[in-house]
Amino acid sequence: MVQPAPARVGDPISEIDTPALIIDLDAFEHNLALMASKLPDGVRLRPHAKTHKSAEIGRLQMDRGAVGLCCQKTSEAQALVAGGIDNVMVSNQVVGTKKLARLAALANQATISVCVDNADNIDALANAMAAAGHDSQINVFVEIDVGNGRCGVAPGEPAAALVRKTLASPRLHFRGLQAYHGTAQHLRTSAERQRAIQGAISAVEKTTSILKSEDIGCEIIAGAGTGSFENEIASGVYNELQAGSYIFMDADYARNLDDSGQPVSLFKHALFVRATVISSTRAGHAVLDAGHKSVAIDSGFPTVWQAESIAYTGASDEHGVLTIDNDAATPAVGSHVMLVPGHCDPTVNLHEWYIGVRGDTVEVVWPVTARGAMF
Amino acid sequence: MVQPAPARVGDPISEIDTPALIIDLDAFEHNLALMASKLPDGVRLRPHAKTHKSAEIGRLQMDRGAVGLCCQKTSEAQALVAGGIDNVMVSNQVVGTKKLARLAALANQATISVCVDNADNIDALANAMAAAGHDSQINVFVEIDVGNGRCGVAPGEPAAALVRKTLASPRLHFRGLQAYHGTAQHLRTSAERQRAIQGAISAVEKTTSILKSEDIGCEIIAGAGTGSFENEIASGVYNELQAGSYIFMDADYARNLDDSGQPVSLFKHALFVRATVISSTRAGHAVLDAGHKSVAIDSGFPTVWQAESIAYTGASDEHGVLTIDNDAATPAVGSHVMLVPGHCDPTVNLHEWYIGVRGDTVEVVWPVTARGAMF
Repeated sequence: MVQPAPARVGDPISEIDTPALIIDLDAFEHNLALMASKLPDGVRLRPHAKTHKSAEIGRLQMDRGAVGLCCQKTSEAQALVAGGIDNVMVSNQVVGTKKLARLAALANQATISVCVDNADNIDALANAMAAAGHDSQINVFVEIDVGNGRCGVAPGEPAAALVRKTLASPRLHFRGLQAYHGTAQHLRTSAERQRAIQGAISAVEKTTSILKSEDIGCEIIAGAGTGSFENEIASGVYNELQAGSYIFMDADYARNLDDSGQPVSLFKHALFVRATVISSTRAGHAVLDAGHKSVAIDSGFPTVWQAESIAYTGASDEHGVLTIDNDAATPAVGSHVMLVPGHCDPTVNLHEWYIGVRGDTVEVVWPVTARGAMF
Repeated sequence: MVQPAPARVGDPISEIDTPALIIDLDAFEHNLALMASKLPDGVRLRPHAKTHKSAEIGRLQMDRGAVGLCCQKTSEAQALVAGGIDNVMVSNQVVGTKKLARLAALANQATISVCVDNADNIDALANAMAAAGHDSQINVFVEIDVGNGRCGVAPGEPAAALVRKTLASPRLHFRGLQAYHGTAQHLRTSAERQRAIQGAISAVEKTTSILKSEDIGCEIIAGAGTGSFENEIASGVYNELQAGSYIFMDADYARNLDDSGQPVSLFKHALFVRATVISSTRAGHAVLDAGHKSVAIDSGFPTVWQAESIAYTGASDEHGVLTIDNDAATPAVGSHVMLVPGHCDPTVNLHEWYIGVRGDTVEVVWPVTARGAMF
């Protein structure tokens, strides 16, 4: 069930089979270095591996100072640990006896952290650790809802109660609060994002003030994403950032605006889906071999890289329709385009291989280590 | 990179790890039998395997009389042939030297058909067959645009010209016209679908009348999908149907209406994504472990099976948000729901395993044979 890679190291770009997931290594390395340079003393990076699902990329992030990786699922954590990553946080709730048993076993192989927002789940996690047959601890973050409206217990006393419960279990090591504001990442104006993160900071402080009054230490305040991380850095409150998309950027994040109303231009587009024109039966119309099964559309259609006169205007399972401006040439059957995915994370999940290119040549071929790891 | 299956044969449903792709075998077998019973003499079924990507399911369809399978990509055809399917049509254009070489090689292992809508592509296909090192032929269908607006040459003389060109190449065996009307499948009213297929029939006849005047036989008129196949049967023109989704049904097809304005109720929902509630921090709100990476949303969010008071109202990569009516109970953390995907095909592509259940028990575990086969 594993597909062969669409190219080999040393191939010219023109020889890459399509559709293929391409990393522009120059842009990727720019993004790696830029994020590392943005971190002040006392603020650590734990990049989100749900973006890339790759042990190779995770190691490059850790070589640049990241303390470990985040992921969303236990099986992702298992795949990353098997790939040599020794510090992984599941920034999510893990529910169910089988999953908790896997997570507890993994805590003896690497430094593992997990989020909780429910008292019964804390008991279940403690029971799984007790049954795991080892003496290691697991790091626990109490997740608070900072305005995201998804997971997370209410800040303040409900969160403090879960912290106390965690501290009462000897195999659970309370490390801090998970305070991720997902919807803030995609608010378009700088002012909107700042307001959202200010609300998150208030939710954190409402909780930490209770903990402080009880002499309960709260070492880590974790959260932030590519859209808002500068706000979390500026807060003086967050000290562990979970940005993921910065490494690739996608069409949606490129729509965020800075203080002056211009598109934020910190990170470069480094991830593409290379596609081939398979049909063009009239001027202004062409069809690609890349549809829903090779590029995710949950954050809109992909854009066509460096081709302003061409728009991706329709997708079916294995087709993408291009509409070309009246005065521009229609791409010929057999020609190629590079698509910038609307959303990197679910696009990566469709592929088994990264093809890393520099100039006109394939330099690396990396597996998508945790592809399909949804359990 | 292959994930373990989320259940074993004999497991109770309660033990299935989530999110998991579930087949209700009773409903699935109903659909298999019903479609077989709908076919009059002289109309054959070649179900589309882009829906299921499964050699096991394809064999069950062929056991019920299907003449072979369709798929969209060369690598899908390779996976299906490797899985024992001996007659596969790539109902799509295959472009590029590497892909054509793979397709030409496959034509010596099984009965292979492919679509063309471009003269240069016919030359490239003929060259690939000449270079393949065997004497087998490949079946060729000229694809005409019957109103779908995607691939396909214009009907009439442009299509006839490609037929003549195909006939001039000894290694290409002209078999007929590909006349699939994709957008017709999702027109909601019976009258709209009938009008669209009437247009497709006119496009076919515009082409076949030219061929007939030149004594060129056109054995097969291929097309149709789950939304319109009864119209193609009634046409007396189509004789090979390519419906795929009938085997599973999805939430979108269930929105089609029959002559009396009621939802079409031929086929049963047989495909589900089983998910677990991982967080619920307030009444009316719960979060599932199934988001963009386990259920496709290109045809809308999934619906929640047999739970009218619960709606799936938001998705992120690995989370699905449920909103529960005021007067209904909020599902507890750890409870399960069954989701009906908006669109089966790209949902299946996210999974590696089918878990086939009957009653409360897992009866079969099938791999998604051609998962990720996008090349």
